[in-house]
Amino acid sequence: MKSRAAIALAAGQPLELVDIDVQGPRAGEVLVRIVATSVCHTDAYTLSGADPEGVFPAVLGHEGAGIVEEVGEGVTSLKVGDHVIPLYTAECGKCKFCLSGKTNLCGSVRATQGKGLMPDGTTRFSLEGKPLFHYMGTSTFSEYTVLPEVSLAKVSKEAPLDKICLLGCGVTTGIGAVINTAKVTPGSTVAVFGLGAIGLAVIQGAQMMNAGRIIAIDVNTGKFELARQFGATDFVNPKDHSAPIQQVIVDMTDGGVDYSFECIGNVNVMRSALECCHKGWGESIIIGVAGAGQEISTRPFQLVTGRVWKGSAFGGVKGRSQLPGYVERYMKGEIKIDEFITHDMPFNKINEAFDLLHEGKSIRTVLHY
Amino acid sequence: MKSRAAIALAAGQPLELVDIDVQGPRAGEVLVRIVATSVCHTDAYTLSGADPEGVFPAVLGHEGAGIVEEVGEGVTSLKVGDHVIPLYTAECGKCKFCLSGKTNLCGSVRATQGKGLMPDGTTRFSLEGKPLFHYMGTSTFSEYTVLPEVSLAKVSKEAPLDKICLLGCGVTTGIGAVINTAKVTPGSTVAVFGLGAIGLAVIQGAQMMNAGRIIAIDVNTGKFELARQFGATDFVNPKDHSAPIQQVIVDMTDGGVDYSFECIGNVNVMRSALECCHKGWGESIIIGVAGAGQEISTRPFQLVTGRVWKGSAFGGVKGRSQLPGYVERYMKGEIKIDEFITHDMPFNKINEAFDLLHEGKSIRTVLHY
Repeated sequence: MKSRAAIALAAGQPLELVDIDVQGPRAGEVLVRIVATSVCHTDAYTLSGADPEGVFPAVLGHEGAGIVEEVGEGVTSLKVGDHVIPLYTAECGKCKFCLSGKTNLCGSVRATQGKGLMPDGTTRFSLEGKPLFHYMGTSTFSEYTVLPEVSLAKVSKEAPLDKICLLGCGVTTGIGAVINTAKVTPGSTVAVFGLGAIGLAVIQGAQMMNAGRIIAIDVNTGKFELARQFGATDFVNPKDHSAPIQQVIVDMTDGGVDYSFECIGNVNVMRSALECCHKGWGESIIIGVAGAGQEISTRPFQLVTGRVWKGSAFGGVKGRSQLPGYVERYMKGEIKIDEFITHDMPFNKINEAFDLLHEGKSIRTVLHY
Repeated sequence: MKSRAAIALAAGQPLELVDIDVQGPRAGEVLVRIVATSVCHTDAYTLSGADPEGVFPAVLGHEGAGIVEEVGEGVTSLKVGDHVIPLYTAECGKCKFCLSGKTNLCGSVRATQGKGLMPDGTTRFSLEGKPLFHYMGTSTFSEYTVLPEVSLAKVSKEAPLDKICLLGCGVTTGIGAVINTAKVTPGSTVAVFGLGAIGLAVIQGAQMMNAGRIIAIDVNTGKFELARQFGATDFVNPKDHSAPIQQVIVDMTDGGVDYSFECIGNVNVMRSALECCHKGWGESIIIGVAGAGQEISTRPFQLVTGRVWKGSAFGGVKGRSQLPGYVERYMKGEIKIDEFITHDMPFNKINEAFDLLHEGKSIRTVLHY
């Protein structure tokens, strides 16, 4: 079948709007019609060419929501008409990782997903007979996309797809990192580095967990008002200080924060985030994705004196079993999503959405097919 | 009063055996007669000159046990004749750290201790009228030493002082890191880098926690037999492999270990220890003390994919409240100490004890006054 899509032909170029060919679902696979998708920094990162795993030509996009159009042989947990959120972190329920009870990093489709392929090693996308690669197992920049059954969370049909698409990455990643990875405790002090969608979602999560003080840090002061609406109590622009930012935070918190979150992908900020933690118990969570080959570093004394360095992917959330609950909490007003959406556009304006993201003018642009 | 002592006049020189002058305890202080002390790598590290906090001339030594000789004004928790273990990690029970319930890093005497001084900013040691610095708040290389009350754990009089002196550092640090910092779970897989006293104590702790597999790693294969006696199940000499040691461990454990411990103080080994942990949940604990200015590094992806980097000082053990329990467990046969003692000597052979440590021929030498 034909499908409208925005494809990445090569690194560093704008996406190309074309009609591509999409094959039907094979065994264990599901064809989904994406209703809405947004653009995340990770799409931009891969498109830039900096992602060592990036392969081209490909159909990018990983933050979307849609409706099941067709199911392949053996698919039992989904049927035509179900509303779904694509998952770049699958949940098979059977692998060593899923069975461990300790992580959301399902291993079932990881190897092929990282290569831009379906689990059988082939692709369902092509343009003029030439295959196009998948991306993060989701490829939401095609109106019709094919995913493994284990990579789809079935959610309430009552929820607006053009809002809950943000639960496919940013909002869930931020809130989940607070709840699952850091397990922020009531009354604690939290520092959030970077006020994009992830950082704002971390602030929201910290407020949900009743943190006592939430320090929002960004060089773009235009983000502070939105951060305040999500629950931030203190605002710091590193450019206003000559001292290292970790020292500024330590000084304003009588020794450091209980939890810090790096939501940028800058290895120097990751170090600052660790070192602004309180001696004895402060924990720093890396969420941002750093450039290829970049490394974090610190003096081991920072850890020996009780700081803990962690990271989080998709907020430690198990997509199939836990994401439906996030949708329910949104419907009850317990999780804010609408406030992240600064722009709505038709799908064919997708390159404008990338421009807004790069310029720091948008938090999230939702694209409607 | 006069006291036999081995003093460090300057970095890089052997200790000098002399009779020094020791003042009596001031308010909140206690005079202790050390009965036995051992030599730890941290003493050797400071003596080498590599310790940026090292000050000379000083009375080193921090792994000892003794008897209270005199108490200063206001001391209520100890009396003459009590058996005690000196603590380089004090426990005041009143500071922010002690009250947090999250750390053993008491802040009460830290600032002065780091400068080689008593809490009032002076020293109790002198030689020919010139002051000698204290060390780690303990200075067990003087037969008579003065400590803050909060830096002494009162222990059972039944326990042999020339054995339980090892609970002043090495044995407690290793076992505590397993129990308090890592919280090793039954059946788990553990990798231990470095088979000195700390590493062997980690192995003992892992066996106490019923770890399923304990991998002992050292370039000195002469340590393997003792490691086996403490409970190690697998033995790896990195020199036997051309692949990086983290890859060797990952391959032999189907993806990595649940917990790893760095017990050397080598920043490259710290990286290996982190990277041999299992994706999704593996935790690495730094115990070793690295050289001044040295840094650890890794790709942030290691943490984003679920590994956790931690550290531990004195095994997270609160000395005054918990060390007496360690002594009791030793008396019941639940904690092994005697097996660490490879050599016993009179105190005046202390420089031989340092030589044995440097040559890798001893685990612990106990010096008797």
